[in-house]
Amino acid sequence: MEYKFLEKIQDPRDIKQFNSSEISELCNEIRDVLVNTVSKNGGHLASNLGIVELTIALHRVFDSPKDAILFDVGHQSYVHKILTGRLDRFSEIRKQGGLSGFMRPDESEHDPFVTGHASNSLAAAFGIYNAKKIKGEEGTAVAIIGDGALTGGLAFEALNNIGNSKGNFIVVLNDNKMSISKNVGSLAAHLNKIRIKPSYHRLKNRTEKILLKLPLGKQVHSFVSRLKKMFKGFIYRTNVFEGLGFNYFGPLDGHNVESIEAVLKIAKAEDRPSVVHIITTKGKGYPYAEDEPGSYHGVSAFDAKDGLKTGGNVNFSSVCGNFINSAAEKDEKICAITAAMPQGTGLELFAQNHKDRFFDVGIAEEYAVTFASGLAISGMKPYFSVYSSFLQRGYDEIIHDTAIANLPVRFLVDRAGIVGEDGETHQGVFDVAFLSTIPNMTIYSPASYKELVGCLESSLNCDSPLAIRYPRGKEKYEFDYNGKDYTVFQNSGKVAIVTFGIISSNALIAQQNLSEKGIKIDVIKLNKLFPYSEKLISLLNTYEKLYFFEEGVLNGGISQQIASNLQVPLKITAIENAFIPSMTTEAAYKKCNLSAKAMVEIIESENS
Amino acid sequence: MEYKFLEKIQDPRDIKQFNSSEISELCNEIRDVLVNTVSKNGGHLASNLGIVELTIALHRVFDSPKDAILFDVGHQSYVHKILTGRLDRFSEIRKQGGLSGFMRPDESEHDPFVTGHASNSLAAAFGIYNAKKIKGEEGTAVAIIGDGALTGGLAFEALNNIGNSKGNFIVVLNDNKMSISKNVGSLAAHLNKIRIKPSYHRLKNRTEKILLKLPLGKQVHSFVSRLKKMFKGFIYRTNVFEGLGFNYFGPLDGHNVESIEAVLKIAKAEDRPSVVHIITTKGKGYPYAEDEPGSYHGVSAFDAKDGLKTGGNVNFSSVCGNFINSAAEKDEKICAITAAMPQGTGLELFAQNHKDRFFDVGIAEEYAVTFASGLAISGMKPYFSVYSSFLQRGYDEIIHDTAIANLPVRFLVDRAGIVGEDGETHQGVFDVAFLSTIPNMTIYSPASYKELVGCLESSLNCDSPLAIRYPRGKEKYEFDYNGKDYTVFQNSGKVAIVTFGIISSNALIAQQNLSEKGIKIDVIKLNKLFPYSEKLISLLNTYEKLYFFEEGVLNGGISQQIASNLQVPLKITAIENAFIPSMTTEAAYKKCNLSAKAMVEIIESENS
Repeated sequence: MEYKFLEKIQDPRDIKQFNSSEISELCNEIRDVLVNTVSKNGGHLASNLGIVELTIALHRVFDSPKDAILFDVGHQSYVHKILTGRLDRFSEIRKQGGLSGFMRPDESEHDPFVTGHASNSLAAAFGIYNAKKIKGEEGTAVAIIGDGALTGGLAFEALNNIGNSKGNFIVVLNDNKMSISKNVGSLAAHLNKIRIKPSYHRLKNRTEKILLKLPLGKQVHSFVSRLKKMFKGFIYRTNVFEGLGFNYFGPLDGHNVESIEAVLKIAKAEDRPSVVHIITTKGKGYPYAEDEPGSYHGVSAFDAKDGLKTGGNVNFSSVCGNFINSAAEKDEKICAITAAMPQGTGLELFAQNHKDRFFDVGIAEEYAVTFASGLAISGMKPYFSVYSSFLQRGYDEIIHDTAIANLPVRFLVDRAGIVGEDGETHQGVFDVAFLSTIPNMTIYSPASYKELVGCLESSLNCDSPLAIRYPRGKEKYEFDYNGKDYTVFQNSGKVAIVTFGIISSNALIAQQNLSEKGIKIDVIKLNKLFPYSEKLISLLNTYEKLYFFEEGVLNGGISQQIASNLQVPLKITAIENAFIPSMTTEAAYKKCNLSAKAMVEIIESENS
Repeated sequence: MEYKFLEKIQDPRDIKQFNSSEISELCNEIRDVLVNTVSKNGGHLASNLGIVELTIALHRVFDSPKDAILFDVGHQSYVHKILTGRLDRFSEIRKQGGLSGFMRPDESEHDPFVTGHASNSLAAAFGIYNAKKIKGEEGTAVAIIGDGALTGGLAFEALNNIGNSKGNFIVVLNDNKMSISKNVGSLAAHLNKIRIKPSYHRLKNRTEKILLKLPLGKQVHSFVSRLKKMFKGFIYRTNVFEGLGFNYFGPLDGHNVESIEAVLKIAKAEDRPSVVHIITTKGKGYPYAEDEPGSYHGVSAFDAKDGLKTGGNVNFSSVCGNFINSAAEKDEKICAITAAMPQGTGLELFAQNHKDRFFDVGIAEEYAVTFASGLAISGMKPYFSVYSSFLQRGYDEIIHDTAIANLPVRFLVDRAGIVGEDGETHQGVFDVAFLSTIPNMTIYSPASYKELVGCLESSLNCDSPLAIRYPRGKEKYEFDYNGKDYTVFQNSGKVAIVTFGIISSNALIAQQNLSEKGIKIDVIKLNKLFPYSEKLISLLNTYEKLYFFEEGVLNGGISQQIASNLQVPLKITAIENAFIPSMTTEAAYKKCNLSAKAMVEIIESENS
């Protein structure tokens, strides 16, 4: 396909020149680029297909970067990237050295803030907006947030701070009725009420006019005058956003550029903050994705013509979810909680089979931790399944609500360790460090499905907070579960590698390679990371030299903690800069010296 | 005063026997106990005085512990404690071995959950409520939350999850128009709108009745029938709580036991969740506190007859606040942010003098971090002043929104270290560990006012995230600021204490005591904790033995991090169990072996 209109856009201002039919062509071209590229590179598809018209309208009404345009999460900023001078690099999205799959200020002046974790756009954009006002600069700020991300507490804290302020800050609510999966909660129900009354805004205005102009006939005088008073007070505050002090516009058809433009212009001219509520179809224009928007939210490479091949791939998430599902059949105390990730965390079966004990709380990790703690203090066995980098949101709640009362909340920490193409915002490299600061916490790091199941079994009757962390994707080596805190792979060495998690297989390869070179080392693979035992420390003290490879942050990591207790020298290789951009996990291991090859080189250089 | 009615209460059910005038007497007795005890022990006064009638009404309508009654933050649970069998121990509140100043499940079966940090009550109580339903148990759960705590994102996440659910879960909104200071944000404005329309609920009902019964005369037929339709859709959803799917009752006079009881009974009989909005007066019944509720929120001991002696006490918070205020006069980029603590963090002057650059964001630490990051990316110099234990709420945002883009947000970490009587929920002992996991972060720990000012000066032109942590209260030793990362107090020793912060003065006392016993040690006092320099490591390696005393958690703390880099033995004394209950800071130092005496004993035992 030739990109006749896209190629005319050197700067986002160029979009303003097109007429209505040209815009329509442009939309087709963008969708073609999206489907072609994402089907090759993997990435976020459905959300970007849904936001083509909105992004065009935004760039026609506002002047980026003078006006800051911030997409919450940023997984739906692909169209924005294409329109802001990054078309020629778009084929390299999510590849090493290429464009990020999210917004990155160091990538373009049109990306005003880091995105990746949900619900931060309102707060960040309002900070940017206030800085403009304090400095007397021109321009405004627009945050585009989905109805899913809006359920995060951070977004609400921002609504509370922005509402009733002065100036034309704009929130665009991109309502596609979905988080990654189907959206939940009473705010979603409220949006649904607004949606099914598309005549809402019109009706309100008309009624108001009638009331204010109506000649008050004798009969209805007192009734209508009472109504009038009431209306002045209340009918202006008929939805949550208005209640919180925003202008409300909507709901609008999110695939009609002209009507979005018209309303954005009005909002831009206001002197108080607005919520512009638009309805979009996730996956718009690509039939496969329209039919199954959840499956096409974040995808690996696929054949654009045939669509995704779905099917029951076994991975750590599915093993975990299936175990919990089966266990819940025998034990009525088991509950499962997810923060808007029932598919990603493998909980679909649990959700189907144990409805009363399944809680999808929306994008709300803080609530998930505290709610789970409330279940636990009442004798239930809650499992909160969550990605490592998102559990960071619950740090205070784990300390305060779970650990002080020593409650047996089970944290299933998915996507622990390096995650690959999602890049710096999604690396699960902090969990070992932050969880091990918390008294009463136990941390397991299984490296195979069998070990995962073993850890899950031992969690069924735990009586204190417990985290089981496991990586994204599939096992690399079929470690047996031995029920112990650690496994020693002996090669009669006086030197040993200490490690844990999925890179343990790298250590075994290194052991063999070194052996072939005449260097005998043992591998000590930790399963229980924290608290570590006196027995482990004693064992480690029997070696002459230790090499700890940790797939996690160096500072505060478990290797430093163990090192501080040892009498023998321990050389640590851990992640010094946790913000690893998009690249394959293999590339990241290489970069961080956690590959088998790096292990060999480090040990060989000191022992040959 | 004789407590004629209080003494009849052995169990909260006993409250149900009293008649209206007896209740009134009971209220007086409770207020007398509150003023007498808090004026002796210090603690939270104004909030408890405001909630006497509500607490009585709750215990008359519900059956604790069958019904879980959970007070958010818990600083207003004193009346609840008095009424649930703890009157005889009440004189020991906030003392070592005595009652906690917050709710503690290990203290009483009537305290259903740990409280201390704001905004967790709805989530925790809804967890408890769901456990009851799953187990088929009787009883309900009631969360009592102030309008201040309601601004926290965790509370909103809970509203979103609770609204539209089935069953009679109850949220009592205790609206006193205050957080600790005056409340902020658009939700507060919304509550104010509801408050000034006390006829709201009544009017709505009446109008609805009129509309539904009105015989539709020819003239008004089409108009009214349109209105009817609209009303059915909207007038039931006229405030934020109704928008989120709750029954709404209120606003009610919070000092009228009978009317609160009546409404709570209705809410208890409903089959969907309710918000019961009551208006209370903070400080009610004690004139000094009614006049200045902010000053009487949390107090030290004072003379009950004369009231608090207020006045400009110099402490770390005031030194910090005053510095920022002065600096902002010369530098228009400086902004200050507080999460509902303008007084506690010493920012009153800044708030007065630099209104446009002062942001009280309410109880919303997540928002504060992200908003500050938005300011910073736009070239401003934001200072977020926050208590250490509350900054835990912003861990993810510091990583994601501040550190990835390496933004110079200044974190003024107040109440760092041991805090004394507030107990386990408020100990500022995690910050060094969790902040030092974050790439790009710098951490200072000044131990005197001069050092604090020195650190603040060096922060003015920082270009990356920076935390300055300082203790609650006053300096103990007037350390000069030497502009260096650390200070060595030499005594020609081959042994040294390494330490930082306010306990550095303990180390100097220990040094002198040991010297008198013939044991010469040096003291190395760190000012910059992180990142630590190669120079420091080299210096430490010149000693034969080191003793690190850390007023912070052991696991992941800075002492372990440094130890993992040393060749010489380092013995760490840090806080192994961070959950230190109410006691004086001196008692806590003793307990944690961080007192001068403990330092002497540890070193003497190994060196004499």
